[in-house]
Amino acid sequence: MASNSFGKLFTLTTFGESHGEAIGGIIDGCPAGLQLDFEAIQNDMNRRKPGQSSIVTQRKEEDDVHFLSGIFEGKTTGTPIGFRINNSNQKSTDYSHIKDSYRPSHADYTYDKKYGSRDYRGGGRASARETANWVVAGAVAKQLIKGVSINAFVSSVGDIFIDKPYQDLDFSKTETNTVRCPDEDTAQKMISKIKEIKKAGDTIGGTITCVLQNVPIGLGEPVFDKLHAQLGKAMLSINAVKGFEYGSGFCGVQMKGSEHNDAFNEDGSTKTNLSGGIQGGISNGMDIYFRVAFKPVATLIQSYETIDLKGNTITIQGKGRHDPCVVPRAVPIVEAMAALVIADFWLLNKISKL
Amino acid sequence: MASNSFGKLFTLTTFGESHGEAIGGIIDGCPAGLQLDFEAIQNDMNRRKPGQSSIVTQRKEEDDVHFLSGIFEGKTTGTPIGFRINNSNQKSTDYSHIKDSYRPSHADYTYDKKYGSRDYRGGGRASARETANWVVAGAVAKQLIKGVSINAFVSSVGDIFIDKPYQDLDFSKTETNTVRCPDEDTAQKMISKIKEIKKAGDTIGGTITCVLQNVPIGLGEPVFDKLHAQLGKAMLSINAVKGFEYGSGFCGVQMKGSEHNDAFNEDGSTKTNLSGGIQGGISNGMDIYFRVAFKPVATLIQSYETIDLKGNTITIQGKGRHDPCVVPRAVPIVEAMAALVIADFWLLNKISKL
Amino acid sequence: MASNSFGKLFTLTTFGESHGEAIGGIIDGCPAGLQLDFEAIQNDMNRRKPGQSSIVTQRKEEDDVHFLSGIFEGKTTGTPIGFRINNSNQKSTDYSHIKDSYRPSHADYTYDKKYGSRDYRGGGRASARETANWVVAGAVAKQLIKGVSINAFVSSVGDIFIDKPYQDLDFSKTETNTVRCPDEDTAQKMISKIKEIKKAGDTIGGTITCVLQNVPIGLGEPVFDKLHAQLGKAMLSINAVKGFEYGSGFCGVQMKGSEHNDAFNEDGSTKTNLSGGIQGGISNGMDIYFRVAFKPVATLIQSYETIDLKGNTITIQGKGRHDPCVVPRAVPIVEAMAALVIADFWLLNKISKL
Amino acid sequence: MASNSFGKLFTLTTFGESHGEAIGGIIDGCPAGLQLDFEAIQNDMNRRKPGQSSIVTQRKEEDDVHFLSGIFEGKTTGTPIGFRINNSNQKSTDYSHIKDSYRPSHADYTYDKKYGSRDYRGGGRASARETANWVVAGAVAKQLIKGVSINAFVSSVGDIFIDKPYQDLDFSKTETNTVRCPDEDTAQKMISKIKEIKKAGDTIGGTITCVLQNVPIGLGEPVFDKLHAQLGKAMLSINAVKGFEYGSGFCGVQMKGSEHNDAFNEDGSTKTNLSGGIQGGISNGMDIYFRVAFKPVATLIQSYETIDLKGNTITIQGKGRHDPCVVPRAVPIVEAMAALVIADFWLLNKISKL
Repeated sequence: MASNSFGKLFTLTTFGESHGEAIGGIIDGCPAGLQLDFEAIQNDMNRRKPGQSSIVTQRKEEDDVHFLSGIFEGKTTGTPIGFRINNSNQKSTDYSHIKDSYRPSHADYTYDKKYGSRDYRGGGRASARETANWVVAGAVAKQLIKGVSINAFVSSVGDIFIDKPYQDLDFSKTETNTVRCPDEDTAQKMISKIKEIKKAGDTIGGTITCVLQNVPIGLGEPVFDKLHAQLGKAMLSINAVKGFEYGSGFCGVQMKGSEHNDAFNEDGSTKTNLSGGIQGGISNGMDIYFRVAFKPVATLIQSYETIDLKGNTITIQGKGRHDPCVVPRAVPIVEAMAALVIADFWLLNKISKL
Repeated sequence: MASNSFGKLFTLTTFGESHGEAIGGIIDGCPAGLQLDFEAIQNDMNRRKPGQSSIVTQRKEEDDVHFLSGIFEGKTTGTPIGFRINNSNQKSTDYSHIKDSYRPSHADYTYDKKYGSRDYRGGGRASARETANWVVAGAVAKQLIKGVSINAFVSSVGDIFIDKPYQDLDFSKTETNTVRCPDEDTAQKMISKIKEIKKAGDTIGGTITCVLQNVPIGLGEPVFDKLHAQLGKAMLSINAVKGFEYGSGFCGVQMKGSEHNDAFNEDGSTKTNLSGGIQGGISNGMDIYFRVAFKPVATLIQSYETIDLKGNTITIQGKGRHDPCVVPRAVPIVEAMAALVIADFWLLNKISKL
Repeated sequence: MASNSFGKLFTLTTFGESHGEAIGGIIDGCPAGLQLDFEAIQNDMNRRKPGQSSIVTQRKEEDDVHFLSGIFEGKTTGTPIGFRINNSNQKSTDYSHIKDSYRPSHADYTYDKKYGSRDYRGGGRASARETANWVVAGAVAKQLIKGVSINAFVSSVGDIFIDKPYQDLDFSKTETNTVRCPDEDTAQKMISKIKEIKKAGDTIGGTITCVLQNVPIGLGEPVFDKLHAQLGKAMLSINAVKGFEYGSGFCGVQMKGSEHNDAFNEDGSTKTNLSGGIQGGISNGMDIYFRVAFKPVATLIQSYETIDLKGNTITIQGKGRHDPCVVPRAVPIVEAMAALVIADFWLLNKISKL
Repeated sequence: MASNSFGKLFTLTTFGESHGEAIGGIIDGCPAGLQLDFEAIQNDMNRRKPGQSSIVTQRKEEDDVHFLSGIFEGKTTGTPIGFRINNSNQKSTDYSHIKDSYRPSHADYTYDKKYGSRDYRGGGRASARETANWVVAGAVAKQLIKGVSINAFVSSVGDIFIDKPYQDLDFSKTETNTVRCPDEDTAQKMISKIKEIKKAGDTIGGTITCVLQNVPIGLGEPVFDKLHAQLGKAMLSINAVKGFEYGSGFCGVQMKGSEHNDAFNEDGSTKTNLSGGIQGGISNGMDIYFRVAFKPVATLIQSYETIDLKGNTITIQGKGRHDPCVVPRAVPIVEAMAALVIADFWLLNKISKL
């Protein structure tokens, strides 16, 4: 499988850099007969797009998706679904200052070393613009696994954390504020924090928690395609992600087995759910929940020292229109990648037994 | 790619349950001409095997690997390397008590639901015995990427943590104690903790930190096969793993971009390394380091309540010879999976540019 | 790997139906640093396009390829190469007569049964328009394996065959006539034959022979990815192909081993080449040659009986602008698919040995 | 996917050389719950094994398959099925004469060039012994697609052909003679021919025809995984195969479209079947039939000239116990590979539509 493809049966293959005419992708393996809700797809695109609020990048991009194939009279035909997202805002002069230098903690240096040269305009392939493609495919995947509910939300910004378990949150509130945190008080603190960081020309990290409910029992493959291993890979593919944990996660390591084990109810559900809905790599019907760590965005609006292509130290004045904190816009991306994983395993599980 | 295969070019495909005649695997894609050090391979096997010390399971298994093909006069021939590890210790009566019940936080229930029935002897395919196959393949991979040094070690057991950065540790000390912690004082505390837990018939979790040094610049593929995403998937494939973080990890989310960015030296190395040796999914030549969270083993030597196949609540008296803490034996497994990932990307990177 | 992808390392993934806005594809895995000759790419497109002569379909399509990514300053960057070919000639009314019926020996019936419904406009995904995507990718592949010369030509139309071995032909003459047969006398007979068939509203089959020269020794993988097996699969993927043979092919079955074996010269080349340049699935440096059988196109301009969707027998008056014989336009398609196979194995072979 | 793997969902990965302790493989992706008939599997092994009659190689090998995993109480469990076939007859001295030379039309030269050296004992990985693994997996696949009947038979040896269409043959007679030709008169001529060739220390080629009946409608994927393209690849993977054709094949190229088209009956079946049961790459429910060309075996019992590793011309006296004609023993191999292809597409088709 090529490196720009994701999934085994429900696969997404993508192309595109932020400065070109368009980005896009091909969804292959979506079963025929799925009635698509195009408004729902565009809605997810709008949740990801720049310029949607004062705490995200002020770039204006419409991010309209154009489907090119694989759909007839509103339904999937079983053939590949090609799509295109035009780059409406190719302000390539923004990037002229990075042509001859390597920005710290970006992919400039590693791309140059790996490929022998790089397309320096707009971060090239390493730009998070690529994730618009993922949101399209994820929105289609969500419709395939209709019964599953997928709710991601911002659970921390810097040192501001939601201090409640997810069970006490009302996911319908996630979209009611610009930071996408369903706890209103915490949301306001997060927004203030981001505004303050932005004013300083700096950036800040955060975490997203995602909860998958009504996932059928049996999804995931033992050994090398465990459900949580593929979810982890999916999340770690998102720009700026530094960590992934599910169920009891890193906290669980301090527990004893007698505390950590999830006792069964008589219907096969469990009294607790430290397993995070997955046992032996396979979904057990309980809620799947996981947490994703995002580092602070590396692009600053401050001046900083770095090196040019020859290794000379230079000073750069950061500019452009970047996100002070990536997590509000990453919520739909986390959901999209989760949907791709679940849809793929859902198809794969149809042939697990006779 | 089938679910029991790992890797794109350097691939491992495995089979086997703990109660059968043998487990084994096929390594495909190892280049011809690699002189193998069989002692080194067996040495890694010995580091993983049961019964090696008083703080691990007392099952006695020799875990000798028999190579069946792909090697001629000590060198790889370019054809698939088949291998077999006999199951010398098939004490299947140990498992008769689990035939008709689902153990909490095991894979019994999910396998049964996914496949319609299960091989209840010894945990079947979900047994960690499978990881012996991984250690074989990882040991071959290590020899392919000879220049790279891979050092994993136990960084915490329960609430006992090493309180030094890895740079202050002497990796040559890792194998000098049974818990595989290179900090001798901490090691002794960990060992005491595990003994105490064992006496209570309970289990405890822990973390493993792994450091990869001298990784060539340029490994990893952008977008869907980022180096850290594949490392994450590899680690999350190991039994009992609940989380993965690299570089600044979950701590990084509280930092500001101006603190987190790794400024360049004039030779392209960086002054700090919060990136964890990977930028844009590609190795940058700095140390790669990551941390893996292991939950407490679910198998206890206490009595516990659970359900039988019909959903009736029953009480089970735990027995068998299980690890009170999985991390000491998981150290070579973490190294093996890291080696598989690096070897695969090392081969793939040979064709990144003309 | 998804069903609309071809290749392991140099991969092409495609989308599109003939009636939509555009078809296109993504080339993933092309190494960075390849200087592209866009004129050569468009030239191959022109050799495939409809309307180029009086013996092919008279549809007018420009078939201009637009590259969308993966290329910077004329060179590949190592990132995926997205491209688009607009459908300039969407005369969808041409197909209204087939909406409610199944054309004999087309894919109408099987698509409908497989997918539950079909996009009846223009043959949907089964249309040979898809092969325009292949020619784009093949033209890029040709430039990657620059030293290899790939020459396909029409070796028969109906019962008119070239009666010379390929060694006696001048490949530079292939493009001097509309049927793409390098033997001028035979070419004229073929052209007359096709004109006669066309006048009758009928179609005719033919064969294409392809010769690959200067293929490096060592390409192809033993066992399941033999060079000729992959070439065979590539050719059998082309619309209307019914057979593939290489080297001595079907004639070789009547020979004795003592006649068929290719004796060595002292430089490792062989005195004869009944092996067709491949031994044990691996190229041996001699010419690779193979022959591909194309059935007569199923779309006729005669009236014919068939069934409608409910199974009633009906009479259809064939219309549209179809090829009376597919082989002249299939020559660049055969070359493109051969180039994709060789490029993929060429990359793969870079890691065969240390 | 690694080069020693075959299939997407029902996959076989193999290892082994003829001189080692054992060959074997791993079947991954077989659904759980398949009751296996082990006698039927061994029966197919016996049809392939050497020494079964006077017209095949006189090597004695028992070819007993040992299953190592993935089966519990006679049923598949959904986990990988590992198996081993011991090499009972490792008469490696037979091959000492080829250590320093390249046999004509063998894989000796190409393996040496590709891998830098080769395991010269017994043909190494290029030996047809590998096909024993395929027969095991194919026999399991046959049981998965129980309703499909797969009948291969020898349709020609040298210039002796069956002169009847397959519809006039009684497949139950195939196993009644040693050459596996269901037409008794032709069989006797073939046997005489092979005996005569054997006496001369020579070898002869032949063809195998295979007929698949009761294949469900809808198997095969459009574009790059057409059913016939994958069947072609499967057949071209078999040692000594030089060509593949299905349906009208190479004969079809001389026909006109008006003759070649298969008119529909009202039930969707067709009056003729020149399509060979596949339209647009997808099975249409009619018989699938194809023909496979095998060259004469390259190993002779005559003396012949060749070169040594340094390029010096030398004379070798052929010896060993080789097949004078490969087709009788290749019949179960053709069936096995066909079964693998059908089983894979059968699983894949379960997710074609909602």
